[in-house]
Amino acid sequence: MAAAAQLLRGAARAVRAPPALARRSLGSAPPGVPAGRGGQRWALAGALGGLGLGLGLWRRRAAVAAGEEEDEEEERLRRRFMAPPVSGLRELRRRRRELRSRMELLIMETQAEVCRALAAVDPGAAFAVDTWERKEGGGGISCVLQDGEVFEKAGVNVSVVFGQLSEEAARQMRSRGKSLKASADGKLPFCAMGVSSVIHPKNPHVPTMHFNYRYFEIEEADGTKQWWFGGGTDLTPTYLNEEDAVHFHKTLKEACDKHDPKLYPKYKKWCDDYFFIKHRGERRGIGGIFFDDVDSPSKEEVFQFVQSCAKAIVPCYIPIVKRHCHDSFTPEEKQWQQLRRGRYVEFNLIYDRGTKFGLLTPGSRIESILMSLPLTARWEYMHTPPESSREAEILEVLRNPKDWVH
Amino acid sequence: MAAAAQLLRGAARAVRAPPALARRSLGSAPPGVPAGRGGQRWALAGALGGLGLGLGLWRRRAAVAAGEEEDEEEERLRRRFMAPPVSGLRELRRRRRELRSRMELLIMETQAEVCRALAAVDPGAAFAVDTWERKEGGGGISCVLQDGEVFEKAGVNVSVVFGQLSEEAARQMRSRGKSLKASADGKLPFCAMGVSSVIHPKNPHVPTMHFNYRYFEIEEADGTKQWWFGGGTDLTPTYLNEEDAVHFHKTLKEACDKHDPKLYPKYKKWCDDYFFIKHRGERRGIGGIFFDDVDSPSKEEVFQFVQSCAKAIVPCYIPIVKRHCHDSFTPEEKQWQQLRRGRYVEFNLIYDRGTKFGLLTPGSRIESILMSLPLTARWEYMHTPPESSREAEILEVLRNPKDWVH
Repeated sequence: MAAAAQLLRGAARAVRAPPALARRSLGSAPPGVPAGRGGQRWALAGALGGLGLGLGLWRRRAAVAAGEEEDEEEERLRRRFMAPPVSGLRELRRRRRELRSRMELLIMETQAEVCRALAAVDPGAAFAVDTWERKEGGGGISCVLQDGEVFEKAGVNVSVVFGQLSEEAARQMRSRGKSLKASADGKLPFCAMGVSSVIHPKNPHVPTMHFNYRYFEIEEADGTKQWWFGGGTDLTPTYLNEEDAVHFHKTLKEACDKHDPKLYPKYKKWCDDYFFIKHRGERRGIGGIFFDDVDSPSKEEVFQFVQSCAKAIVPCYIPIVKRHCHDSFTPEEKQWQQLRRGRYVEFNLIYDRGTKFGLLTPGSRIESILMSLPLTARWEYMHTPPESSREAEILEVLRNPKDWVH
Repeated sequence: MAAAAQLLRGAARAVRAPPALARRSLGSAPPGVPAGRGGQRWALAGALGGLGLGLGLWRRRAAVAAGEEEDEEEERLRRRFMAPPVSGLRELRRRRRELRSRMELLIMETQAEVCRALAAVDPGAAFAVDTWERKEGGGGISCVLQDGEVFEKAGVNVSVVFGQLSEEAARQMRSRGKSLKASADGKLPFCAMGVSSVIHPKNPHVPTMHFNYRYFEIEEADGTKQWWFGGGTDLTPTYLNEEDAVHFHKTLKEACDKHDPKLYPKYKKWCDDYFFIKHRGERRGIGGIFFDDVDSPSKEEVFQFVQSCAKAIVPCYIPIVKRHCHDSFTPEEKQWQQLRRGRYVEFNLIYDRGTKFGLLTPGSRIESILMSLPLTARWEYMHTPPESSREAEILEVLRNPKDWVH
C-alpha cells in the first residue's frame, strides 16, 4: 500500500537525516534504553512502530483475536508517539481504512517527529506533554517546551475534536463561502483534527516557524458529508537571510512538486495573502505555503499531498536552526525581535482563522490554542527603523513579498 | 450656561488640586514663561482659556468682526490644549451651539487635563504630541509618553473622524441591535469623536488605567440622525489593593450620582460584563464604569453626565499613582505584571469594540489605536499562581467581580 510505504520511508528518513540530528534524536530514547546500541534499538522500534508498518501489521492480524502480540504492537506505537492517540489505538485499528484514522496517525507521527527534532538541537529542551479531554467530544495532546537554550517557547499540538459545530463557527465558515445545511434543530455534527505548531527561538537570527495540517468533516442535514484539508508551513525571520529563505521555500516546493507542479506557486501566493496583517500593510513573515478548503481531486490524493508536506517540516526548518543558533547578537537585535513578536501576536489574535475557530469552539483548550503566542513581546509607539538598515530590509520584504524559488 | 460654568469649574479644579500636582503641572508651562510667577500666569491663562469661558467669550463677541482680540482668544485655547482641535477653532466657534462642537471641546480639554496630571507625577515624562489627518475626513491628536520614570507607556488620544461608514463597521453595529438604513448606494454618513487613553505604569503596584468617552452620529437614508454616547473608566491592577479599589469606584459613583443614582450600579455591572476575557473566564481588571449606545433621556443630559465622568478621571487615578509609585517590588512581581499585560493584549485585540471599529475604519491611524498595547507583555504556557498567593487573590476578584461601594 503506497501510503503506508511512503509513511514508513518518511519515518525512517526523519530519524536518519540529517545525521547529527539523528544521533541526538536517538539520544532522546525513553529512559531505560541504554545509549548507543539502545539508540539503534529505539530507531528500529521507531521504524517498526512507524505509522505505515503499524497499519500493515494490523491488517495482517485482522482475523486474529486480540492478544499479547497486539498489545505489544500498541505498546510500540505508544512509545513512538508523544502520548496515546485521542481516539485510542484500538478504535483507530477498528476503522483503519477511514481517512480520519489515517490522518490521526499522521498528525501523531508528525508531532513526535518534530518534537524529537527540536529536542535534538536544544540541549536545554524538555517538553511538557499534556493530554486533555474535551467534554463535548475529543481531546488533544500538547507538547510545549519553554525556556530552552535554543527555543524560548515551542509548542507542537495535536487535537481531535468532534461534536456539534457552534453557531458562531458555522457562521464563520459560511462567511468564507461554505454552504452548510443544518438540520431543523440547527445541528451540524463535525469532526476536526490537526497538528499545529509555533516555534519561537531565543536567538534573533533563528526565525520563528509555524505549521499546521488539519482535516475537517461536517455532516449536513441530508446526511451528505463535506470534508476538506487545510494547512501550511511558514517562516517568520527577525532579519532576512536569503540563503535560509531559499532553502525553506525550495524544500516546500519539492514536497509540492511531487504531486502537482501547480501547487507550490498557488499555495505560496495563498500564504502571502493569508498571513497579511492588514492594518500594518505587512505580511507576518516571508511565507511558505498555505491552503484551506481543499477537497479535490480526491480524499486520497489530498491526503498524500498533506503527508508530503508534513514530512517536509523537519528538513525545511532544522538546518536553519542549526546554522544560526550560535550566532552572536546585540541587545538592539533582540529588541527588534521583540517588536516583531508583537506583530506576531497581532496577527494571531486578530486574523488567524485557527485561533478564531478555537476560541469559538466551546470546550476547546485555551492554553493549547494560545501556546502560539511568544513568551515575550513588545510594542513601541511609532517605531520606524532607519533607512537601509537590516530592520528596514526585512520590512521591505514583508511589505512586498518576493519569489524565492522559480 | 450651566455646562460652560461647570466646565470652567472643572478646569480650574484640575489646575488647582491636588496641590503638589498643580505645582508641577504649572512647571510644565510653555518654554519662555518664567517659573513661579510664570506658573501662575499659565494657570490664569488655563482658567481663562478653559473651555467654559472660551465659549462664553465667543458668544459675547458673536456680533464683533473677527479681529485681534479673537486671535488672542484662540491663541489662549490653543495653548491650553495639547494641539489645535481637528475641526479648527473658528469652525467650532461657528457652530458652537451644536453638541458636536461642545463634545469636541470637552475631549480636547480632557486630553490636556490628563496629560498635565500625568506629567506632574512623572518627572521623566515627555509627551510626544502628534497631530494626524485622515484623508477620508477628520483626524486626531495623539499624546504618547514612553519610558518615563513612573509610566512605561501612556497614551491620551483624541480623534474626530467623519465620512462614510465602512460596510464592515455598519455590520458590526447592526449585529449589536442598531437599525441603520443606508441609502440606495449603501452610504451611511457618520461622525465619531472621542478621547481615549491607556496608562501602563512601570511599578507593578500601580494599576493600569483606561478611559474612553465618545460620541457618534449617523445619518440614515431618510435624513434622520441617530446619535449616541459611550464611554467609561476602568482600572486594571496587577495586585489587589482594596483601598485603591474603593477609592476608584467611590469617585466614579459620586460622578454618576450627581445625575441619577441608578447610573453607577448599572454601568458598574456593564463594565464587569464588557471587559470580560471570555476564553479565560476572567475580567480584564477590577472594573469601573462602562456604557454604550446611550441616547436618552436627552442629548444635553447625556452630555452633562459624560462631562462629569471626564472630570472624575484625574481624581480617580492620580491619588493611586502617587500612593504607590515608590513602592518596592520584586522581579517575581514584575513578571506577574508582564503576564497580566499579556491578558490585556488578549482583551484589546480579540474583544475590544473600539479597537475593532478602529481597525475596520479605512484610513484610521493604527499607531494611535494600538498605543493601548503595553510596552512589553509575556505569555507562559499553563501558568498558575499558588493557592492563597497575592497573585491568586487578584485572579479570584477577576473571576468573581466584587462590589466595592454600596
